[in-house]
Amino acid sequence: MTLNETLKKIQHLDRIPQKNIQAHLDDLTKPPGSLGRLEEIAMQYCLIRQTTSPSLPRKKIFCLAGDHGVARSGVSAFPQEVTGQMVQNMLNGGAAINVLAEHAHAELAVVDMGIIPEINSRDLIERKVRPGTANIEEGPAMSIEEATRAVEIGISLACDAASAGFTLLGTGEMGIANTTPSTALCSQYLGIKPADITGAGTGINSSQLRAKIRVIERALEVNKQLFNDPLSVLAAVGGLEIAGICGLVLGCAANNIPVVIDGFISTAGALAAMRMEPVVQDYLFFSHVSKEKGHSVIIHQLGIRPLLNLDLRLGEGTGGALAMTMVDASISIYNQMATFSSAAVTGKD
Amino acid sequence: MTLNETLKKIQHLDRIPQKNIQAHLDDLTKPPGSLGRLEEIAMQYCLIRQTTSPSLPRKKIFCLAGDHGVARSGVSAFPQEVTGQMVQNMLNGGAAINVLAEHAHAELAVVDMGIIPEINSRDLIERKVRPGTANIEEGPAMSIEEATRAVEIGISLACDAASAGFTLLGTGEMGIANTTPSTALCSQYLGIKPADITGAGTGINSSQLRAKIRVIERALEVNKQLFNDPLSVLAAVGGLEIAGICGLVLGCAANNIPVVIDGFISTAGALAAMRMEPVVQDYLFFSHVSKEKGHSVIIHQLGIRPLLNLDLRLGEGTGGALAMTMVDASISIYNQMATFSSAAVTGKD
Repeated sequence: MTLNETLKKIQHLDRIPQKNIQAHLDDLTKPPGSLGRLEEIAMQYCLIRQTTSPSLPRKKIFCLAGDHGVARSGVSAFPQEVTGQMVQNMLNGGAAINVLAEHAHAELAVVDMGIIPEINSRDLIERKVRPGTANIEEGPAMSIEEATRAVEIGISLACDAASAGFTLLGTGEMGIANTTPSTALCSQYLGIKPADITGAGTGINSSQLRAKIRVIERALEVNKQLFNDPLSVLAAVGGLEIAGICGLVLGCAANNIPVVIDGFISTAGALAAMRMEPVVQDYLFFSHVSKEKGHSVIIHQLGIRPLLNLDLRLGEGTGGALAMTMVDASISIYNQMATFSSAAVTGKD
Repeated sequence: MTLNETLKKIQHLDRIPQKNIQAHLDDLTKPPGSLGRLEEIAMQYCLIRQTTSPSLPRKKIFCLAGDHGVARSGVSAFPQEVTGQMVQNMLNGGAAINVLAEHAHAELAVVDMGIIPEINSRDLIERKVRPGTANIEEGPAMSIEEATRAVEIGISLACDAASAGFTLLGTGEMGIANTTPSTALCSQYLGIKPADITGAGTGINSSQLRAKIRVIERALEVNKQLFNDPLSVLAAVGGLEIAGICGLVLGCAANNIPVVIDGFISTAGALAAMRMEPVVQDYLFFSHVSKEKGHSVIIHQLGIRPLLNLDLRLGEGTGGALAMTMVDASISIYNQMATFSSAAVTGKD
């Protein structure tokens, strides 16, 4: 599916089943609403899937990897080669997302959206658009065509997962320096000053942080003539894995698949999708509030209440994996609890 | 073990392994500290268990049930007979805690600490101290001897679980009206006015809420001559399942077993234990911030940061079960991730 076809296919949730879903939730042997957000999750999941009898989700997490030209501007605590090394680590099963995807009983797919090294592995999904972006401090990260291609790769990943029977997807990413383009994107999309949302990423010190803010300010200044619509902003100051996440989110919404958004970088990708088509927000579970400085500001401005707040700032999809276990819990509650009548429990006075 | 023997056995955590545990956490392939509270959980779990190579927890949740004389004062949205009905529902596998314990791969034990009906089931652990407490609005809930017995039952449950090889326990409760004694206990232990922490429990309306506050105020006034020490407060305005939770918590600390505290009522039981021996706090994981009004005030005053905030207000151990999955995740991270050297990943600049 092309980007335009996908955008046309995304529909508001059909709210017709809502009354029946709510009636079932209220008939379970607990005070109405007492399972709080688990009940909200069950409702949203059922509405997205358009069912009153959901199965336990079949889950898959996509960890999209890309390199960033802006890493050369000294914005990260880790050197650029770590992107490829961590992709290899994921393929070997040693990264945090491997552990937490297994914990969540989710399949994990690692996708090369545009890392610099060539990694030969049958476990790596090879979708390299280009070997790293250009440095956004000096000009656009990529062309509109490249950004479109990256978004459409994300869409196709979602479509293929839908065809394979997955019913809950998760976003994740790996890309040294990628909090920098993510901050630039959020700043431009939301009209927030970079200084208000630029954080320490993987752990830079305060003088490096001041330099990082200046890099983001320059990136927005240098590219400002290119900002015409959400896609052109994504091309100018985004990243290949971020564009892929944008596409994954759009593809999920077009296929009636709920998608769990991981942390700061995934939120930037999801925000790009929401700027292209605001209706996609109905299809998203925001998993957690990242410890990365800007995330809480951004989710507050978007009016979003993520499910978890565990001071995570790793990315890869780790927070999303943990939140997926909450979705499982909510669907189990919906399916397995007794009702007041079946259990002969007296209702509320 | 008697209560006094148990209190003597509780020791401060031995911090000697801390340096080695931290070194291992920092050698995992992620920026140091980037898994936030998961790393804190792993540290606390390892320190409690006094190990640098923890196994995945063996988990058991104790749902303690008791009836409350104060239910006759109209403080709950559900009638008193629901306590026994819900115990039966749990024995049949239909309650929320059945579903969420299974989700967390935790064994569930349902204990009759003092419900009014007799339920004959080999699945029910029969430890009835008395068939319900007296009405705290009119005098003490129970005698000091009964409270001691309930606490020591909780201790023995923890000791037996430790002997059986469980390494992570969870608290839970069922008892119509039990937010009322819990609020009275927290009010007395923490010096907070009942009006500031009395909530709607299972769902009373605003005039019932005003009446509930007056009942709690009267309970504290009527019993004030009896308040000599933490145990006497527990006997006067507590409940049998709450005293059992207090004992379970003490028994865990005495056996070097971490224990996950569920919501508002479990916090009241844990608070009684912390008033008897403040060191027990080292052994506790507070699972979630309940939607019950007083809980956030109380945890703030205690300086506690629970792991989850999902607007739950059900009890039974449901929030604890969900938090147990986070403990599992943290131990899996500790055990399964690659290290920088083993994975050939370059460290921080």
